[in-house]
Amino acid sequence: MSRSQGPSSPEIERLIALMSKLPGFGPRSARRATLALLKKRDALMLPLAAALESTAAAIKTCGHCGNLDAADPCYVCSDPRRDSKQLCVVADVADLWALERAGGYRGRYHVLGGVLSAIDGVRSEDLRIGELMERVEADGVTEVIVALAATVDGQTTGHVLSDHLSGLDITVTRLAQGVPMGGELEYLDEGTLMAALASRRAV
Amino acid sequence: MSRSQGPSSPEIERLIALMSKLPGFGPRSARRATLALLKKRDALMLPLAAALESTAAAIKTCGHCGNLDAADPCYVCSDPRRDSKQLCVVADVADLWALERAGGYRGRYHVLGGVLSAIDGVRSEDLRIGELMERVEADGVTEVIVALAATVDGQTTGHVLSDHLSGLDITVTRLAQGVPMGGELEYLDEGTLMAALASRRAV
Repeated sequence: MSRSQGPSSPEIERLIALMSKLPGFGPRSARRATLALLKKRDALMLPLAAALESTAAAIKTCGHCGNLDAADPCYVCSDPRRDSKQLCVVADVADLWALERAGGYRGRYHVLGGVLSAIDGVRSEDLRIGELMERVEADGVTEVIVALAATVDGQTTGHVLSDHLSGLDITVTRLAQGVPMGGELEYLDEGTLMAALASRRAV
Repeated sequence: MSRSQGPSSPEIERLIALMSKLPGFGPRSARRATLALLKKRDALMLPLAAALESTAAAIKTCGHCGNLDAADPCYVCSDPRRDSKQLCVVADVADLWALERAGGYRGRYHVLGGVLSAIDGVRSEDLRIGELMERVEADGVTEVIVALAATVDGQTTGHVLSDHLSGLDITVTRLAQGVPMGGELEYLDEGTLMAALASRRAV
């Protein structure tokens, strides 16, 4: 026998190798998940295979905002009850989903496709800034909400966006910085505390 | 729109729901993994779907030992160079794989299908103990190595197995207990230290 790749059969080892490429999985947890799948073949493994295949075929990138959906334009862009004059700029589809999960926001989105990063070599022409400018003009947008991470790269990207948008007659806002829900002051970093103090509000 | 199930499309939410049933994944990490899959459709998502489907179809439970393999008998049971007189009893296929990963063992296995557990309601008739007794007799086994977890349930199961096997003219052994490789004494529990001391060996 020439079984060099692992303790189990080649088919299983191949599946483990693919599973271990998922974020959050390493070789060990991928092996554990693969075994769990093999034990729940009809209840989980085959439905998962079918869902992966059909979802891969069905889901498109929205040509307007960059969201992922079975329809293009996506469910946000095609919803007539959402305010097309308010545009929330996010780095990634995951951020769009997070804001939708939070509920409350009734405007539309623009997925930038990342943030500027010297380390990762992301330049402003790699981001969907041109498309943002076009949408702002075409849709008569009145407010752009910059919802980027409170990191150095996120803030830098926010400044670049502000520069691009500054010539237009629109309001540019960014997410508030402060104490997160349930955050105990004792455990917060100095930056967050200073930002919360500087942006304090009358009760 | 009647979108009650989540922030993204129904197809994606369904896939996230299936992914979150994998051990090691929760709702949040399943969402992250699903998004990663959608971004790597051709490189990861479709190959994973195909591998899940083909592996589910190909893999069988070995009728001899209980291992999972494309062949029945499995690669261990059908390997003529492995000693059929030596039988290593493990609780689960994952344990068999772990021992195979460690290398060195040249006998065969018997997967018990769990350990006795009052809490989980696992009784001795739920385990493949009858099959073990049959194999021991049929294959002329001379040594049974009980390789069960050093937990209360594992040890109880080991005692029950020893009782079953005690009437036969075979050697019953169990894995050594002691200091694990790289284990620092300072951080080891008292049980392990006492076991290591009691089983000390001449240098």
